Amino acid sequence: MWLNCDLGESFGAWSMGLDNEVMPYIDAANIACGFHAGDPVVIAKTLSLAKLHDLKIGAHPSYPDKEGFGRRSMKLESNELIHCLHYQIAALEGMARTQGLQLDYVKPHGALYNDMMANTESLEVVMKAVSSYSCTLKLMLLATKEQDAHRALAKRYQLQLYFEAFADRLYTDEGMLVSRNKPLAVHSSEKVLEQVACLSKYGHVITENGQKLSMKADTLCVHGDNFEAITEIKRIRDVLSFR
Amino acid sequence: MWLNCDLGESFGAWSMGLDNEVMPYIDAANIACGFHAGDPVVIAKTLSLAKLHDLKIGAHPSYPDKEGFGRRSMKLESNELIHCLHYQIAALEGMARTQGLQLDYVKPHGALYNDMMANTESLEVVMKAVSSYSCTLKLMLLATKEQDAHRALAKRYQLQLYFEAFADRLYTDEGMLVSRNKPLAVHSSEKVLEQVACLSKYGHVITENGQKLSMKADTLCVHGDNFEAITEIKRIRDVLSFR
Amino acid sequence: MWLNCDLGESFGAWSMGLDNEVMPYIDAANIACGFHAGDPVVIAKTLSLAKLHDLKIGAHPSYPDKEGFGRRSMKLESNELIHCLHYQIAALEGMARTQGLQLDYVKPHGALYNDMMANTESLEVVMKAVSSYSCTLKLMLLATKEQDAHRALAKRYQLQLYFEAFADRLYTDEGMLVSRNKPLAVHSSEKVLEQVACLSKYGHVITENGQKLSMKADTLCVHGDNFEAITEIKRIRDVLSFR
Amino acid sequence: MWLNCDLGESFGAWSMGLDNEVMPYIDAANIACGFHAGDPVVIAKTLSLAKLHDLKIGAHPSYPDKEGFGRRSMKLESNELIHCLHYQIAALEGMARTQGLQLDYVKPHGALYNDMMANTESLEVVMKAVSSYSCTLKLMLLATKEQDAHRALAKRYQLQLYFEAFADRLYTDEGMLVSRNKPLAVHSSEKVLEQVACLSKYGHVITENGQKLSMKADTLCVHGDNFEAITEIKRIRDVLSFR
Repeated sequence: MWLNCDLGESFGAWSMGLDNEVMPYIDAANIACGFHAGDPVVIAKTLSLAKLHDLKIGAHPSYPDKEGFGRRSMKLESNELIHCLHYQIAALEGMARTQGLQLDYVKPHGALYNDMMANTESLEVVMKAVSSYSCTLKLMLLATKEQDAHRALAKRYQLQLYFEAFADRLYTDEGMLVSRNKPLAVHSSEKVLEQVACLSKYGHVITENGQKLSMKADTLCVHGDNFEAITEIKRIRDVLSFR
Repeated sequence: MWLNCDLGESFGAWSMGLDNEVMPYIDAANIACGFHAGDPVVIAKTLSLAKLHDLKIGAHPSYPDKEGFGRRSMKLESNELIHCLHYQIAALEGMARTQGLQLDYVKPHGALYNDMMANTESLEVVMKAVSSYSCTLKLMLLATKEQDAHRALAKRYQLQLYFEAFADRLYTDEGMLVSRNKPLAVHSSEKVLEQVACLSKYGHVITENGQKLSMKADTLCVHGDNFEAITEIKRIRDVLSFR
Repeated sequence: MWLNCDLGESFGAWSMGLDNEVMPYIDAANIACGFHAGDPVVIAKTLSLAKLHDLKIGAHPSYPDKEGFGRRSMKLESNELIHCLHYQIAALEGMARTQGLQLDYVKPHGALYNDMMANTESLEVVMKAVSSYSCTLKLMLLATKEQDAHRALAKRYQLQLYFEAFADRLYTDEGMLVSRNKPLAVHSSEKVLEQVACLSKYGHVITENGQKLSMKADTLCVHGDNFEAITEIKRIRDVLSFR
Repeated sequence: MWLNCDLGESFGAWSMGLDNEVMPYIDAANIACGFHAGDPVVIAKTLSLAKLHDLKIGAHPSYPDKEGFGRRSMKLESNELIHCLHYQIAALEGMARTQGLQLDYVKPHGALYNDMMANTESLEVVMKAVSSYSCTLKLMLLATKEQDAHRALAKRYQLQLYFEAFADRLYTDEGMLVSRNKPLAVHSSEKVLEQVACLSKYGHVITENGQKLSMKADTLCVHGDNFEAITEIKRIRDVLSFR
């Protein structure tokens, strides 16, 4: 299992995330495209860092909402959402090309990611957008109990999927993430490593009710917000390589 | 001489320009990229109209200033300007590709256009940006007395140029446009047609001091803001075809 | 019944609405505050026009969404919404003061207006925002079957209400507006005048099912988008003065 | 001499400055108004912190340029600039009033501050804006050799001024700040304290050429970006109280 991380989320004079520090320990960069974070200068820097570390590059598009960091759900028409996604993917792709890089996948951000996982209609609009942009771009989404249904849906759009799992989040029996507001929703450092081991060895997680939930994840989502997070990523790497 | 026109300058709920009406009478669309005007939905619509009318497509990038419609000069670092241009060109290019279209050229907008014509340093940054984006994109700029110098500069960047002339504007002896604030700066309808005839037949314009100024323009810039403007374009077409 | 109209919805280079033409025929201006439309220059101009025509002035705040013209529902925290409303009301109020004008009321715009009418929780947040800003500002909302409940709720916040009715829209039996997507949702010119007469004489409207629905409106919302709309306002004025 | 500091420069999910930590050691807060930094939530929080620490409150308005953090000069019409200033001052003032606070002064930010110090025409537009907003608001500007001329100009607008000096910056013989790009432009910690002592005891600074330059500053500008900066403020306080 390879590691993906949200990057390039600085904006203008405001910096966010330890992009420089986290890059050596991950495999794929989800790069903000300027709608919730990022701007042309930040994007160029992030791409060049990603190139240096030879990372897979994903577009990390969002609803158009910088003030809310793309975390507020917005009701866009299907058509509008598709064009918003094309615009962001295109901007990132073209800038990547000037550095000799190629986009590999799209991973929606924040509220758009949540909306797409919560209702099939939104997911289908996102699939349409990605597949109509290019026949080689993959879509990254959450590995849940619906993996097979999602794969079937994607097939209709001749779209390949990457399923991701979270190392640090507690799962419901349905394979959704337990809301951050609930106690125990975010794992302790120790639990994180257990979950990673479990996922990589046996292909399951232990849910909030102690059930074993089978889950085939291609990639793990990790965070690079602070130095503790990076220490954790190194430990996750150790667990994965040890396997 | 072919005709180019700024298009796709609506934004959200605000519409601007008679894109639909002007398209049949022009050859090339300078399409706003979302920094001074345009948004993903507007861009998609404009591209699809341009496709319908089989127009050459140019990116019409700007300083990042929607509130000022890109008409206020802004001091950006060279690096910053290059990335801002790449972002906008890329966004338009990728969206064009989803409709099977290709970009042909870049024509900077408003204050950026003026700054680039007023000082060589700015022009060189724009040239760098366009040529580093793609080796087939051309740059559109004003035909002035400096045409040869501009061509020589472009050669260094292996960049091809399109020179444009204005049908409706009075020229100084140096081949710059007389400021709109001055009387007679904008031609009457009759003068417009004279200037077009003069340009297309003899390759010169008559300046404010009555001098003949030689000028080799590839294309004429026309406007599609209102119905009178469109009537004028039709007359310009007649003059050009008659030649 | 006095007439209110949304105004000041131009933005930068983009103009919207015939503010100049409609002002002589209305009593109150709902002025956009810069979040869905309007900018400092537009606000100043609109205030000065409103002063000339001696209109009541209302703030017309919105969700922060210029691209979507405030028509897309956004999930803001209560706290966030209150601060967003304070910011907008304050900006307009201070600018009004420089012209010797005072704000009389607040009328939320677009999706915020709809959300506030659709669920009491949102309405209460808006009430909190207005009443905590100033004890003399009124809130304008839709006159529905819930008028008494809304009045009771407002009392808790020591807030006065203005109820508005729509001249041109068909009502459900519950006193909500029939969705614009449905046939007959927007009245013909003749029906508009009938509804106005009915409201002003008898204090009721005829609903989609032919029911008489009692409705005590303080003010009528009219539109100034185009010249036909203004002709209609003049006719509405005649009906009202005739009474 | 009292201490002023730029605050409230976070935006949405991006935080900037140690507002919480610096507040106990300063006297006056220059609060961003949402054009270069700040948003309604950030403004409300900053005001409430400033209230807790009983600080003088100043509006810190800017050119409309969040992406460039107000550091890029923009050519606005006088009229436009005045309305932009009114809008920002008004927004902050109204939000302050909801917390029982009053604005004391206006200190322009970044490029606007530089432009106003560099040419009298800009300064006069800013003076017009502040004095036409309210007759009690003061304007904060740099103490230079032109102090008397600036005071005379302000008198025409019946405007009171606060002159500020910089503790950490080297001065030219004309009393302007030596550009940050030059060596020695920013003082070492030791030099900072010397300059503060010199200013507060003798009312002068030692310029880059070793000249004594008389300078009557009402207030010192200090920074709260990081923990070292805060340690320095404490030392400055000691020097000032010792006097």
